[in-house]
Amino acid sequence: MLDLSNEFAIGIDIGGTNTKYGLVNHRGEILQKGEIKTDAYLEVEDFVDALYDVLTPIIKENVEDGKVKGIGVGAPNGNFYTGTIEYAPNLHWKGIVPVTKLVTAKFGLPSALTNDANAAAVGEMNYGAARGMRDFIMITLGTGVGSGIVANGQLILGHDGFAGELGHTVIRPGGRKHWSTKLDGSLEAYCSATGIVMTAKELMENNPGVDCMMRKIDDKELDSKCIFECAEKGDALALETYRFTGQILGEALANFIMFSSPQAIVLFGGVIKAGDFIMNPTREHMELNLLPIFQNKVKLVFSELKEADAAILGASALVWDLRE
Amino acid sequence: MLDLSNEFAIGIDIGGTNTKYGLVNHRGEILQKGEIKTDAYLEVEDFVDALYDVLTPIIKENVEDGKVKGIGVGAPNGNFYTGTIEYAPNLHWKGIVPVTKLVTAKFGLPSALTNDANAAAVGEMNYGAARGMRDFIMITLGTGVGSGIVANGQLILGHDGFAGELGHTVIRPGGRKHWSTKLDGSLEAYCSATGIVMTAKELMENNPGVDCMMRKIDDKELDSKCIFECAEKGDALALETYRFTGQILGEALANFIMFSSPQAIVLFGGVIKAGDFIMNPTREHMELNLLPIFQNKVKLVFSELKEADAAILGASALVWDLRE
Repeated sequence: MLDLSNEFAIGIDIGGTNTKYGLVNHRGEILQKGEIKTDAYLEVEDFVDALYDVLTPIIKENVEDGKVKGIGVGAPNGNFYTGTIEYAPNLHWKGIVPVTKLVTAKFGLPSALTNDANAAAVGEMNYGAARGMRDFIMITLGTGVGSGIVANGQLILGHDGFAGELGHTVIRPGGRKHWSTKLDGSLEAYCSATGIVMTAKELMENNPGVDCMMRKIDDKELDSKCIFECAEKGDALALETYRFTGQILGEALANFIMFSSPQAIVLFGGVIKAGDFIMNPTREHMELNLLPIFQNKVKLVFSELKEADAAILGASALVWDLRE
Repeated sequence: MLDLSNEFAIGIDIGGTNTKYGLVNHRGEILQKGEIKTDAYLEVEDFVDALYDVLTPIIKENVEDGKVKGIGVGAPNGNFYTGTIEYAPNLHWKGIVPVTKLVTAKFGLPSALTNDANAAAVGEMNYGAARGMRDFIMITLGTGVGSGIVANGQLILGHDGFAGELGHTVIRPGGRKHWSTKLDGSLEAYCSATGIVMTAKELMENNPGVDCMMRKIDDKELDSKCIFECAEKGDALALETYRFTGQILGEALANFIMFSSPQAIVLFGGVIKAGDFIMNPTREHMELNLLPIFQNKVKLVFSELKEADAAILGASALVWDLRE
């Protein structure tokens, strides 16, 4: 058997404000990690230089006889095929940024890049809830709704590298207009943290006679955490907010299942902290909208990666599939 | 280069009434073909014996120095992983029917089985409109709506072999109840030939004041061919029937594109004979519902396989991927 115990991967997660990095072993343990400010570097070359400066001592300290197999990078609008970040609205670097080319040149190591949700899916497949699965869908429910799809043991990237934008599929035609994409009734318009707050506000407005704890919270302060706390205290409209959100999510998941028939759907992100409040209606409406051949087969599971480390782990996992 | 010119494949398409078979070469030319009655054989073993009897002389006559690489079978509810037909409602043989096991034992050749729409997709990839494509979606629009999805150059089968039931995804939640699945608002309820007739009837009922040629056709005679003929003559409600159907289809295709980002969508079946009447609104609403990164990129193309031969060709194409 191949000895993998002395092979290591570097994972880098580029966010709009911060970039996290870490050195990871084959079991998905982070040996050392840190972060730098993404927005402190106006030129991407300086950013890559800074990463080299912080990672070189980490590699020296932890990798003695072994070797670093490569560098995986997760980034918004990251394209696996080209290794470039393309027109990312929240980053300083404009246009098409040749990330893997710069990283490989600086570190002298192979590298791979993909978007955050795809990296999360690869992380779950290598170290998390989807270990050993060849067919699953990862859904990240946070400020936005992201997704990574694995079929036949491979990421589905599409002909251009942009596959897996399930948050933007329309699940309620003619429904709520998305604040940014302007699509009517997309999944993200309802099931992101932003969408959930909008649902709570709509419910309060449409039910003026119903007593509701959420009314006591300042309009600008109301977030999904507040709604969850009100739901825990039994507030009817907060509970209805989650029931409705779960229904929409369940309907969407049923459609996704009839597309790729996954063994499991792995959920990740702040929204699922609402637990049964959202998961019970999700499961119910997912099953209701499936053909019998798909019913009671697909596992709905939570991510098994620690939230703080998931992005680094996901990015690092890209390395294990790199060709030498 | 490998000489493929003397390798042949047998394609068998099992339908509820008739089973078509043919001997096919690498260029997708059918050298000889025929059909037997599926429903004349109460036992599947007798059916396989009958196929052997009709195919043996065809092989002898056409394959001299060459060899038959294998047998591909397309069938309703055909499962690629297990090689079995599972609970097909329109076939005599009940329960789980071990098709590839029986075929391989009788013919002494490797065999593969999948459902009709997947076979169609493999046919287009090998001989038709999707030659050279690694990412595309095949949609068959006939009595029902079927689909086959290819990503990374492989059929998406899912963990259980049942992936690609796009006709049953819900595109109008709470919409028209499907006559058989009982799902509300699924693609098939609107965009199958059956669904189109229902739309025409609804439009006539909801617009009693509108003069309409379709009213002159006997209720039981009204089919999608009649509706097409009325549309050609400029009948407003017939035209609206196709506009509405195209809108629903376009909305659905946009969702599918954001799932797997295919290079093309290949359309097949009687419904698309309506041409621009359905394709113009389809294209329009598909583009309207896509994120900008997907717009004006995905080709909508018609199948390039002759309708009468497509099923045999699709089934035969399964053979080229068989391992020796």
